[in-house]
Amino acid sequence: MIILDTTAADFADRFTALVEGRRESATDVTKGVTAIIARVRAEGEAALADLTRTLDRHDLATTGWRIDPAECAAAYAALDPDLRTALDLAATRIRAYHERQKPTDTDYTDAAGVRLGARWRAVDAAGIYVPGGRAAYPSSLLMNAIPARVAGVERLVMVTPTPDGQINPLVLAAAHLAGIDEIWRVGGAQAIAALAYGAGRIAAVDVVTGPGNAWVAEAKRQVYGVVGIDMVAGPSEIVVVADALNDPDWTAADLLSQAEHDTTTQSILFTDDADYANKVAAAVETQLKTLATAVTARIAWDTNGAIIVVESLADAAPLIDRLAPEHLQLAIDEPQAFFDRIRHAGSVFMGRHTPEAIGDYVAGPNHVLPTGRRARFASGLSVLDFMKRTSFLQLDEDALRELGPATVKLADAEGLPAHAKSVALRLRLNR
Amino acid sequence: MIILDTTAADFADRFTALVEGRRESATDVTKGVTAIIARVRAEGEAALADLTRTLDRHDLATTGWRIDPAECAAAYAALDPDLRTALDLAATRIRAYHERQKPTDTDYTDAAGVRLGARWRAVDAAGIYVPGGRAAYPSSLLMNAIPARVAGVERLVMVTPTPDGQINPLVLAAAHLAGIDEIWRVGGAQAIAALAYGAGRIAAVDVVTGPGNAWVAEAKRQVYGVVGIDMVAGPSEIVVVADALNDPDWTAADLLSQAEHDTTTQSILFTDDADYANKVAAAVETQLKTLATAVTARIAWDTNGAIIVVESLADAAPLIDRLAPEHLQLAIDEPQAFFDRIRHAGSVFMGRHTPEAIGDYVAGPNHVLPTGRRARFASGLSVLDFMKRTSFLQLDEDALRELGPATVKLADAEGLPAHAKSVALRLRLNR
Repeated sequence: MIILDTTAADFADRFTALVEGRRESATDVTKGVTAIIARVRAEGEAALADLTRTLDRHDLATTGWRIDPAECAAAYAALDPDLRTALDLAATRIRAYHERQKPTDTDYTDAAGVRLGARWRAVDAAGIYVPGGRAAYPSSLLMNAIPARVAGVERLVMVTPTPDGQINPLVLAAAHLAGIDEIWRVGGAQAIAALAYGAGRIAAVDVVTGPGNAWVAEAKRQVYGVVGIDMVAGPSEIVVVADALNDPDWTAADLLSQAEHDTTTQSILFTDDADYANKVAAAVETQLKTLATAVTARIAWDTNGAIIVVESLADAAPLIDRLAPEHLQLAIDEPQAFFDRIRHAGSVFMGRHTPEAIGDYVAGPNHVLPTGRRARFASGLSVLDFMKRTSFLQLDEDALRELGPATVKLADAEGLPAHAKSVALRLRLNR
Repeated sequence: MIILDTTAADFADRFTALVEGRRESATDVTKGVTAIIARVRAEGEAALADLTRTLDRHDLATTGWRIDPAECAAAYAALDPDLRTALDLAATRIRAYHERQKPTDTDYTDAAGVRLGARWRAVDAAGIYVPGGRAAYPSSLLMNAIPARVAGVERLVMVTPTPDGQINPLVLAAAHLAGIDEIWRVGGAQAIAALAYGAGRIAAVDVVTGPGNAWVAEAKRQVYGVVGIDMVAGPSEIVVVADALNDPDWTAADLLSQAEHDTTTQSILFTDDADYANKVAAAVETQLKTLATAVTARIAWDTNGAIIVVESLADAAPLIDRLAPEHLQLAIDEPQAFFDRIRHAGSVFMGRHTPEAIGDYVAGPNHVLPTGRRARFASGLSVLDFMKRTSFLQLDEDALRELGPATVKLADAEGLPAHAKSVALRLRLNR
């Protein structure tokens, strides 16, 4: 963890280093992923069975390729009732928030008599990757599946590795709640290849989303364009803006809630009080002593954590824009005024009683957000990622007479005479 | 050109071959592009100057790195008045259509007392690639730049190769009309690298759009994630649905207007009348005799063209969905009813007086559309490509009491105790 002070002589350089620091693991998996995709395209199911045997140590012919919906229903029924209620609340609220994202079609006729518009439709099929093992989060499954369902996707497919044949029952329960149509016990780059190109019994989909390790992320990057993908995801980050009126313990927990995800995550605090900064740093150390996820959180905090002391919190806004953080928590009295000054952030958590964790689970907005400065240009996952827009146009002879001559002029200027002719013939224009 | 009949025994196989046929050129430019990007990142401006000297045969130190806005204004002023009026009409109509795409922010408080919403903002800077030489289309510049301007992008940058120092004055005029802020005389993969990473005097942007050759397309694919890009584009295509009531000459011109773009483009006619099919095929041959772009159009039509004779036009709809064409022209009496049955198309042109060419120039909808079956999941370029959405959340203590316990339950179930703690501390919950 570093502590920076905006009044220090070397602040500009050190802050730039923080902004430009790459936390992505350097593993070069490109070639390995290319080879796996090629193999799945060439060999289909046989490649999936073989790679699953090698990497996940089970035989699909024995364990079964698919997980039965009945198994998911049973896992849901067997949940601890409080946990089931919590999961239900999450699903209901996520659905409600995403319902409002559904786009509106347009259809109008303008002064020239031209009918114009745009029509939105869901994609036919979406595939959701769900990691196996430690990072198997039911909340993540809901965050990916519910927007697809709200969009109206008819075929919702889940792929997930089941190492040694095992799967987290919580994930199955979430799959039941989200209404997944097909679950395949296949993971890794091979699962992404199967979703993009189809492989035997697994039919291809149109959009692939969901988190995964470096192999999964690279596979998504490589199939981008063959199918739609959610985004190129990197390590997660949070920026917390807190004045000295906050309990240092609350802020420390906020920073650690990001740090405990993964050793590559980043937690940054902006405060206008050097004494408060020290109190938070001390509270982090105290909490790390008892935190069950301390090993991970310690590495993330020590390696990537930062506390930045500003003279006035207003000074933080332009610095935060340079970081374009995935999560921005504003633990201050007038969070809206601060938010108004921010251009780039994936999601903003306003006020002292809005810890980021609330947004990870039950609040409603999507927790799949742009990381690694991508909030400069990218948005969180939404219903729109599972839909596409078709524009349309309708002219009658009068409207064509309005627009036709300009079209002929421009087509001729661009050296495209057949374009011009397709208009000129209909208007009996001499050219 | 092939003629298929849906009643033929081998139709299914031959249609599948048509759907799956790849028209992309096989050139493997991946490694070359990777090397160029690495070089621009390492050497900055020097790499741009050197590559421009080699590839575009001029010295940036002599010709100048930038094209002056005054030069664009002069090119606009010097246009043939009819052409200037046509370009003005195009810009005005494109702007009007895209104004309606501007998204609406949401901000509401739900029954649990939780404030939720989403805020849209433009990206700070966008870069538009404009090809040099033959494919330098002013219409394309307008279609890329105007949505960015409507979105509210503050810095709009254009890059374009100027082979031997030359540039198309029509492109300069369009740049003036679109209000481009900076024009750099740099092209190819090196220009995309400069836009994505910045290179000396060219500052990095957030989104890169615009058409280009295989090197440019591959460079965009490689920088995807560092910046946003419009899409992976491939060869263009049109599907025309026409009954025998259409003048065969009109339909032939429609098919050729696609074919004249490039040898890799594809034109497909669906008709319910075999005799009409033959008449259109004959009209194509006749028009090719005098068409100035006949060399290109002939290759495209012979290699990729198809006429598909269906028993009833209604049979065409599911076949068209498999093609998911970029352009779909419905030269029939009830185009809306037909459109209602289509799921996948980039843009639809309805009725006998709506040739696709009208959409290329002045109608208003964007002509940058998903190609090569990507209309299954992708949309045409829009204002949204130059904007991003920030979700937000605000809870007071009461609202946190509503959602907090479920969050703690789920965080504990997922093994993320700091998440749970950040909520529990605020509610003084015992865990």
